Amino acid sequence: MTWEGALVAKAEMINEALNHYLPSESVYPPLIHEAMRYSLFAGGKRLRGALTLATAEALGLKQERVLAAACALEMIHTYSLIHDDLPAMDDDDFRRGKPTCHRVYGEAIAILAGDALLTLAFGVLCRLRESGFSPGVILQVIEEVATAAGTKGLIGGQVVDLESEGCEVSPDTVEYIHLHKTAALFRAAVRCGALLAGADQQKLGLLTDYAVALGMAFQITDDILDLIGDEKVLGKPVKSDLAKEKATYPSVFGLEQAREMAAFYVDKALQALETLGPEFEFLRGAACYLLQRRS
Amino acid sequence: MTWEGALVAKAEMINEALNHYLPSESVYPPLIHEAMRYSLFAGGKRLRGALTLATAEALGLKQERVLAAACALEMIHTYSLIHDDLPAMDDDDFRRGKPTCHRVYGEAIAILAGDALLTLAFGVLCRLRESGFSPGVILQVIEEVATAAGTKGLIGGQVVDLESEGCEVSPDTVEYIHLHKTAALFRAAVRCGALLAGADQQKLGLLTDYAVALGMAFQITDDILDLIGDEKVLGKPVKSDLAKEKATYPSVFGLEQAREMAAFYVDKALQALETLGPEFEFLRGAACYLLQRRS
Repeated sequence: MTWEGALVAKAEMINEALNHYLPSESVYPPLIHEAMRYSLFAGGKRLRGALTLATAEALGLKQERVLAAACALEMIHTYSLIHDDLPAMDDDDFRRGKPTCHRVYGEAIAILAGDALLTLAFGVLCRLRESGFSPGVILQVIEEVATAAGTKGLIGGQVVDLESEGCEVSPDTVEYIHLHKTAALFRAAVRCGALLAGADQQKLGLLTDYAVALGMAFQITDDILDLIGDEKVLGKPVKSDLAKEKATYPSVFGLEQAREMAAFYVDKALQALETLGPEFEFLRGAACYLLQRRS
Repeated sequence: MTWEGALVAKAEMINEALNHYLPSESVYPPLIHEAMRYSLFAGGKRLRGALTLATAEALGLKQERVLAAACALEMIHTYSLIHDDLPAMDDDDFRRGKPTCHRVYGEAIAILAGDALLTLAFGVLCRLRESGFSPGVILQVIEEVATAAGTKGLIGGQVVDLESEGCEVSPDTVEYIHLHKTAALFRAAVRCGALLAGADQQKLGLLTDYAVALGMAFQITDDILDLIGDEKVLGKPVKSDLAKEKATYPSVFGLEQAREMAAFYVDKALQALETLGPEFEFLRGAACYLLQRRS
């Protein structure tokens, strides 16, 4: 199977589980569940959730057992996109080729749909218990996710991202933004899989290094695609970072150096896995995929 | 000590613990921590957190041990107020006599401060471990809180509240709103204290009945105060529900019947505690306080 084929197979598992964990659209009050589902099933690649499944699998677990963790990470990712797209934040009208949540349901419901996905993520993590994990390791996972999603992670990155719009930013600042806004959730995705599988400290360390480097490479290629990508393939307008004067790797370092830095982080991610066996092939493939991604 | 005195003592404990759990304003990025603290320390009574402490205490625990749970509930309460006050929702400029979060920090930071408080609440619940609780019971508490804060609780209530503005609503709908928007968090506050204290099923059932009735009485008196209260004592403009054509008990049933219903729920709350001992005095006091509250 190609790497893309493996990703699609994992995404299908995750989508099925998300459908199971999300209240159906007929559950009262229907509008909020419709809005949550609209954004959650808008066609994401499920890269973060797939990393959780693949890490756990490489460490000897059945992927099915960690589906709740993969789903929680995808819910948090989607919540962050819904809130980032709001008029008060990035004011984006399209995402993955579809109108953004607030364009369809209005701002109030979009805010609440984000809130609800974030809340549900923690509820779903508790359900890891149904897969036979000990409460102790589940608590570790919940703490991991709460830290990654909080002001020391995702939210901290988004705050600095907003503050940096239209400003000259230093390399350190753009690194802070990417580390927190993007890499923190990749890190949590991989670490949750590793923690649930009972990885030893050495492996946990290597996998953490891998995930952070992968997250950085992902965001840099994202920034590059925003600049030179194909609007139709991306499903959202290109050059939006430029219009908003966002702090990105290409804007701070120039396109050529940003490309080199993406390649540097891909290398770094692969190096972290060097001493690990062939069972980590999906993780390696994820790093290589970033160098050729077009959406 | 009077009941109000006991509430203040509990609130002081909670405030100290909140100060401990919240990153200081100097932690990068400072703006988000400042905004979180601004709203969290805007002078709330800490009624929900106090109910957690009092329930655990009545069941034989030292209050200090459940402070993390009390703090998590107060963080979730504050997050819900910040988001409810946003222009896209209730568009309120004042809360507890101070400008609302978005009036001070702007909409983007207010949305993120709410997100961050919700996220931190779950992180803080994990820290109940430091007080020696078993991971199993902590997971039960996290699940309880996630359910109360989600679309089957708080968020569901807020959605129907927004949908009902300017509409003729049925008694069932206004009951749904109050049960979910308000009573759900009171219920979680009491149940978290009870679960951590290892209450048996019978006591848990009685305390749940108490908390739901208390939450209903609290929200009905809140609606009444909005109509006839003193703006200076309340710290926010009165008659705002009327202006927004909100579904409230007075608007659906009239003021007189709303007063009777508040008294009915207070009675119901007290009845639920009838077979319990004098150690539940604070909980009884909370119900009586609602009949005479002015803010």
